[in-house]
Amino acid sequence: MTDTAPPPAASALAIIVLAAGKGTRMKSARHKVLHPVAGQPMLEHLLASAAQLAPERSVVVAGHGRDQLEAQLGSRAAIAVQEPQLGTGHAVQQAEEALAGFEGDVLILYGDVPFVRPETMRAMIARLHGEDTPAVVVLGFEPEDPLRYGRILAHDDGRIAMMVEYKDATEEQRACTLCNSGLMAVKSQDLFALLAKVENDNAAGEYYLTDIVNVASLEERPCAVIVTDDPDEVGGINSRAELAAAEARWQSRRRERAMADGATLVAPETVFFAWDTVIGQDVTIEPNVVFGPGVTVADDVTIHAFSHLEGATLESGVAIGPYARLRPGAVLKANSKVGNFVEMKKAVLGEGAKANHLSYLGDAEIGAGANIGAGTITCNYDGYFKHKTVIGARAFIGSNSALVAPVRIGADAIVAAGSAVTRDVGDGELRLVRGEQLIKPGWADRFHDTMKQKKKAQKGG
Amino acid sequence: MTDTAPPPAASALAIIVLAAGKGTRMKSARHKVLHPVAGQPMLEHLLASAAQLAPERSVVVAGHGRDQLEAQLGSRAAIAVQEPQLGTGHAVQQAEEALAGFEGDVLILYGDVPFVRPETMRAMIARLHGEDTPAVVVLGFEPEDPLRYGRILAHDDGRIAMMVEYKDATEEQRACTLCNSGLMAVKSQDLFALLAKVENDNAAGEYYLTDIVNVASLEERPCAVIVTDDPDEVGGINSRAELAAAEARWQSRRRERAMADGATLVAPETVFFAWDTVIGQDVTIEPNVVFGPGVTVADDVTIHAFSHLEGATLESGVAIGPYARLRPGAVLKANSKVGNFVEMKKAVLGEGAKANHLSYLGDAEIGAGANIGAGTITCNYDGYFKHKTVIGARAFIGSNSALVAPVRIGADAIVAAGSAVTRDVGDGELRLVRGEQLIKPGWADRFHDTMKQKKKAQKGG
Amino acid sequence: MTDTAPPPAASALAIIVLAAGKGTRMKSARHKVLHPVAGQPMLEHLLASAAQLAPERSVVVAGHGRDQLEAQLGSRAAIAVQEPQLGTGHAVQQAEEALAGFEGDVLILYGDVPFVRPETMRAMIARLHGEDTPAVVVLGFEPEDPLRYGRILAHDDGRIAMMVEYKDATEEQRACTLCNSGLMAVKSQDLFALLAKVENDNAAGEYYLTDIVNVASLEERPCAVIVTDDPDEVGGINSRAELAAAEARWQSRRRERAMADGATLVAPETVFFAWDTVIGQDVTIEPNVVFGPGVTVADDVTIHAFSHLEGATLESGVAIGPYARLRPGAVLKANSKVGNFVEMKKAVLGEGAKANHLSYLGDAEIGAGANIGAGTITCNYDGYFKHKTVIGARAFIGSNSALVAPVRIGADAIVAAGSAVTRDVGDGELRLVRGEQLIKPGWADRFHDTMKQKKKAQKGG
Repeated sequence: MTDTAPPPAASALAIIVLAAGKGTRMKSARHKVLHPVAGQPMLEHLLASAAQLAPERSVVVAGHGRDQLEAQLGSRAAIAVQEPQLGTGHAVQQAEEALAGFEGDVLILYGDVPFVRPETMRAMIARLHGEDTPAVVVLGFEPEDPLRYGRILAHDDGRIAMMVEYKDATEEQRACTLCNSGLMAVKSQDLFALLAKVENDNAAGEYYLTDIVNVASLEERPCAVIVTDDPDEVGGINSRAELAAAEARWQSRRRERAMADGATLVAPETVFFAWDTVIGQDVTIEPNVVFGPGVTVADDVTIHAFSHLEGATLESGVAIGPYARLRPGAVLKANSKVGNFVEMKKAVLGEGAKANHLSYLGDAEIGAGANIGAGTITCNYDGYFKHKTVIGARAFIGSNSALVAPVRIGADAIVAAGSAVTRDVGDGELRLVRGEQLIKPGWADRFHDTMKQKKKAQKGG
Repeated sequence: MTDTAPPPAASALAIIVLAAGKGTRMKSARHKVLHPVAGQPMLEHLLASAAQLAPERSVVVAGHGRDQLEAQLGSRAAIAVQEPQLGTGHAVQQAEEALAGFEGDVLILYGDVPFVRPETMRAMIARLHGEDTPAVVVLGFEPEDPLRYGRILAHDDGRIAMMVEYKDATEEQRACTLCNSGLMAVKSQDLFALLAKVENDNAAGEYYLTDIVNVASLEERPCAVIVTDDPDEVGGINSRAELAAAEARWQSRRRERAMADGATLVAPETVFFAWDTVIGQDVTIEPNVVFGPGVTVADDVTIHAFSHLEGATLESGVAIGPYARLRPGAVLKANSKVGNFVEMKKAVLGEGAKANHLSYLGDAEIGAGANIGAGTITCNYDGYFKHKTVIGARAFIGSNSALVAPVRIGADAIVAAGSAVTRDVGDGELRLVRGEQLIKPGWADRFHDTMKQKKKAQKGG
Repeated sequence: MTDTAPPPAASALAIIVLAAGKGTRMKSARHKVLHPVAGQPMLEHLLASAAQLAPERSVVVAGHGRDQLEAQLGSRAAIAVQEPQLGTGHAVQQAEEALAGFEGDVLILYGDVPFVRPETMRAMIARLHGEDTPAVVVLGFEPEDPLRYGRILAHDDGRIAMMVEYKDATEEQRACTLCNSGLMAVKSQDLFALLAKVENDNAAGEYYLTDIVNVASLEERPCAVIVTDDPDEVGGINSRAELAAAEARWQSRRRERAMADGATLVAPETVFFAWDTVIGQDVTIEPNVVFGPGVTVADDVTIHAFSHLEGATLESGVAIGPYARLRPGAVLKANSKVGNFVEMKKAVLGEGAKANHLSYLGDAEIGAGANIGAGTITCNYDGYFKHKTVIGARAFIGSNSALVAPVRIGADAIVAAGSAVTRDVGDGELRLVRGEQLIKPGWADRFHDTMKQKKKAQKGG
């Protein structure tokens, strides 16, 4: 028998992702599987893991909020609609049309169980091609507290004797701690044939996917369970509290990985990574740093406390913060420095350049070695269009300057403090925008006297 | 007997709150019960819970720092002074005068045990009116580690056989884990009669409130215990560490409630609510957000990381932060946006208006759709009085502008970047405040040469 | 025998710190023992503890990265080079030259075991001078999970029967949970004599320091173990994860101490102290505050959320933050106030003075009662040199002003909003730097029309 079984790699794969539930406990207008973990919808985490097995087809079974799923997925998956919703078996049946003509292995996943590892998926497929050619492979898990889950009664070799819902289980069956995650691998030719025989003669009147195991057993076809060594990976996310718990688990692992790779996290529990954050070696991250998506940090970078980064690229030797706010398109060249209360957006800070205090740098190119004074603002928006500011190498922008884009400041140029620069400044030029200094000796003294009397009068009255 | 007992609702209620302790372990000039949890003095948490039972009279027994209690409470409670301090029984006796003429139930509470739930208080009162008409109802609890607490030896039906201080207890008595919280319910006519019979023949020479149970027993009047299912609610706060622990418990529960109500807390453990924070559905709160008192957040609001809110109202669709600082009187109309390093105080931001960067908006009214440029400052203070800035709908305030209040900017008006506006700007008008642009070609180059030589000379010398 | 033993205090002490390991698991170009905890290299924590015993000589045994150790230590310790690295015994031997002529006690410490307490070191020395005059005193510990550590088989009186590496231990020996920390106290005359007899006939071909115990035993000289009551103090730091764990333990203890001393930490787990932070009584620290080195906080100070302090001195009654950033040399006199998004560096803020919003105050002296408006910037840097700003008592600096240093503002003087002040302002004088206010009625309306058409055209095209 084994001789004729194709090696797993040779089988085509399709995935069916169930995502038709209402997600009532989330209390949200957003579809449950689109709630993000680490800055990415949980569904995308699942699809990214499945993508490592290169599925030929992907079907998402949707019910409520399916327009949101379509908007998210585009052409990356077929969407099958389940309406009305008559149970998980019924849900999988809706994928039949989308899988028409497909022959191979089918992996049944859940949009709200997003952290199943690729290696677990691979192990399920491999088991499906085992010597005993099981009709169905179920992923089991052994949680710390198995109370409410359905049980899998299995032989030592992994053959399933029986699957039983918790509410239907005897005391003895409940004492078994091997639980059903709901994830399954089935060959396409078996899946819909078995599903067709599932009945809904239960209290809820639903067609349960689990029943295909019992149907197969009646036909004397073996079914098998494999057990994950990490019960967390099959944890479902049904509420905001479970969402937060999943986020916490994800972050905890990511932090451990960052430290193992050679980053110092002074207080790991206060650093929040995104799903795609890249961190180099000998990077120091102080407490309270938040990474949005799209950040790459090279070696020998220091990120001081209270910094917030999205879509930013930090080259080697860079130091930012505390309170640096880097938005998408911020590029910090080697050894440049961004200090406190500075925001950058679509802006390149040249090698060794500095913007240390209270500035907004948007739609800007800043040359190597330039010094951006405290309170500098690039006025990049006229209410309708964005315009660009270009600052030359080694230029010195005096404090509290407003650079009204489009504008170009030359290399080695100096802009005097407090200037609103509306016209280009040449290389090595000084630009000074100043009003008249009016001096009124004694005026302040008289003002104080008047105001104090006014204040007193007010209190008196 | 039961027939003649009035239903609990019909009884008048008085509360006595003991708050005469020195609170030495707090090491504070502030009265212990005035230390805040979730932005509100612990005493106020207790009074707010008791208020749900609508007590007719409230007496706070004060010793040290009673002026602070008077300042806090005003006319909301009578203050009885205990001086000298001769034990808890003696403390309760000081309330007798304030309760003169009162007939009904008396609940004895502790200012440093502030998180007793109203339902627990109600259960104590109800038990006092039970069929067996106990003279005293004691609130018991079963802590994980009962070591140092006094023990309650009780029958299965809740009748108290004996109360014993830990230091006086036998090994067998200590093995009993039902502990005395100190909270009691007693009818007014019983309370002072029993107290009068309590003696101080103990090592400390103090009159213990607990002893009224023993006095009642001698008179063959039954006393009863009811046991809380949440030992945390009777936890006392005697040190800053216990204060922090109480805060942590409070926050943890509030976060769970926010999530259950449909808010996403990316990292719940980093979000700090105040006692009166109101949070809508589909609100997302990023890591590290601090709420002071008086904040209301409507549905579909996003609060980015590192934001700090006090006394602010956020309407539906608003997005703030990261690093938004909203102070009392900040009102953000629907779909408005406040970005990084922006402070608002007594300021209304109109529907869809934006203040995205580095601004101070104080004593201001900003029209719908207005755009407040980076670095805008409302100069609302002249050193003596505050003045108002009014900005019209769709107005565009250029970056780095100073609006010197009182001043009015018209609808659709434009203020050019870097302007200090001291006079009103009309609707659709452009206001441009600019100094002369002085251009000095080559000046910067010469400056660099001079300074480099100076720097070299300095190092040489 | 005891009669002739000198009292511990009379013995000279030398310490040998082993720091020759590669620290591969740190994945760092920085020497392992120079990675900081609480803002100070771990090696310095160890040396500071040892300094309490006033050692006469200190020798650090270095291998890889010894130039970094030399740069860190200067003349504070002799550096002995171990090259090649043939085990811990061999490492200690390298210190022999640096200890030439020294007679007294030698304490052997490890640079990556930095949190051994001075009292533990003292106890080891005291034990070395015990009646039974042990040749070697070993510091033992009893960890929760003793799995991988070498075991100490000892008699009840602390005499060591045998020391055995985990890999060489029998099942029975492994059942013993007393583990070897590696720390030792030995008299100088014994240390090198014993080391000379240690052989390297083991799998690794290394000379183990531990073997001096076995050598001593062969010579029938007793060796003794003393056991720490805090296994954490002998925890080694070999990875960034262990570094973070050590930081967490350190912070946790420091926070407890701050609270015990009378500070309120609303959320202790979010406050990060430095090794030398000084905190007064009735100080309130809101969530998310980070202390760098060199901060002193007097009584009755409030530090609001998201503040970051380094090298700052806060006198009594001061309030800062949220989002205050105090850098080295910031001195806040009594009752002064620094608000949100304000940075101070080498600047003194006078008694009762205020800088509430969005300012940069560098190299400045600000008089008592002065009011620094929002957006004020001291322009202290010309690209080459730093210059000073002096502001008189009760001066009022209008918002968005740039003070171009060197500059002096007189007492009671007023600087009007939006002024760039380049020349001194006299006492009681008003300084007004203003451009012309150009008014262009209808201009903005026409601009809006043009731009809307342009926008429409762009979309159409």
